[in-house]
Amino acid sequence: MEERIKLTIAYDGTNYCGWQRQNNSPTVEGEIEAACKKLFQGEVRISGASRTDAGVHADGQVVAIEGETVIKAKSLAKAFNSYLPLDIVVQEVEMVPYSFHPRFDAVEKTYVYRIYNANVCMPRYNRFSYYFRHPLDVEKMRRAAADLIGEHDFAPFCSAGSAARTTVRRIISCDIETRENMIEISITGNAFLYNMVRIIVGTLIQIGNGRRAETDFPRILASGDRKQAGPTAPAKGLTLKSIKYKPGHHGLYDGAPARS
Amino acid sequence: MEERIKLTIAYDGTNYCGWQRQNNSPTVEGEIEAACKKLFQGEVRISGASRTDAGVHADGQVVAIEGETVIKAKSLAKAFNSYLPLDIVVQEVEMVPYSFHPRFDAVEKTYVYRIYNANVCMPRYNRFSYYFRHPLDVEKMRRAAADLIGEHDFAPFCSAGSAARTTVRRIISCDIETRENMIEISITGNAFLYNMVRIIVGTLIQIGNGRRAETDFPRILASGDRKQAGPTAPAKGLTLKSIKYKPGHHGLYDGAPARS
Repeated sequence: MEERIKLTIAYDGTNYCGWQRQNNSPTVEGEIEAACKKLFQGEVRISGASRTDAGVHADGQVVAIEGETVIKAKSLAKAFNSYLPLDIVVQEVEMVPYSFHPRFDAVEKTYVYRIYNANVCMPRYNRFSYYFRHPLDVEKMRRAAADLIGEHDFAPFCSAGSAARTTVRRIISCDIETRENMIEISITGNAFLYNMVRIIVGTLIQIGNGRRAETDFPRILASGDRKQAGPTAPAKGLTLKSIKYKPGHHGLYDGAPARS
Repeated sequence: MEERIKLTIAYDGTNYCGWQRQNNSPTVEGEIEAACKKLFQGEVRISGASRTDAGVHADGQVVAIEGETVIKAKSLAKAFNSYLPLDIVVQEVEMVPYSFHPRFDAVEKTYVYRIYNANVCMPRYNRFSYYFRHPLDVEKMRRAAADLIGEHDFAPFCSAGSAARTTVRRIISCDIETRENMIEISITGNAFLYNMVRIIVGTLIQIGNGRRAETDFPRILASGDRKQAGPTAPAKGLTLKSIKYKPGHHGLYDGAPARS
């Protein structure tokens, strides 16, 4: 075999204990693996770009599969979707060079965090956003978020249990949009530490709510101390939106020069 | 008692067999009734503005409750929400005159039907929209929808089983908005026949998909024949958005003169 199969998948993470396979709990990787058993012959190796946590959703998770199948790439998305539960969908299937690695070859990831900010919550938004009742000053949050752009040591925005060799990451953009009572925070970076987006959002909520100064990010970053940042915002508000790859890996890559 | 309690409620209809109470199936009215048993003394009478079907959602269903409670109106929303399941939420509680009837006093209702129109479906939109794979020409649908405005005999857009005395209804507006791959059809009328919105949408989809002429609505209306219209679009795409009342019933009414 000289090629790998690259899947772009979307899921509603509500009913899963995250991406990574576990023996006694439903996970997204576990479901992909079960579908592979029906579609491939013999051993299959699966690797995901992002080990999303329990309850976190994805619009564009990327998965590489190494294995033998008689099904043509063109028909593989349909074949996968006929075996996968309704809350996991294969969006796209591409053949990629054998060297492709969904995690190590990623050059940019974008996450979206949704906050439903109103007096009463709407059942319609229960699954894919975090309901926050108290008023949030979005302009303040936007000004504060500007301090995150660029390369920083994000150690204060990393939960214990991370195995990262370095805690330096580069944030490319952090945009906050509102649509009626929904606040959408989109964060793009070269890579992210464990729980980094959720801790940034937890801190932004405190800023928007007036419990923390809007100039606080530089001080937190300089402290190197997790305790200086805000709480980890709930998983249900977070969606892995998209992953960008170096040129030559097609699909989600938009053709602009790779940022390394 | 000289007053009634008016509740404005929102729900995710996915797990309910519609609004109306049934003996052996979960319904939204059944859940409201169960909550009332905890909050009211003795007999309680509940009436809803709209008997939404199984799987149909609501952002602004209106319910009148007649009964005795020691809980003040101000605290009643919170009290209800502590007893209701997460997919049903009381948004607002108001005291209204005893004469108020949520169905007969309604002067306008607005429904929204959501169609997710893309090559692959997104699990994120599974619950609150109908996934339609084939291309839809929204401009054509908009032009066709204009023929629905005004007073017409909507008999061809009414499912069997309706007990309506007249099938004449007045459509005030039918607007179609798109947001990326989501198509939102908002229909406001003085009242609606059984399945009327879903049959209109089923017909609009055939027009958008090129399987029916965009000038077909006048012909169907003139025919008086249900078989001339399109199929009933699936329940999951439909949300009862809001209900407008005559002046004096506060809340959702915006102050403009009542249309009768």
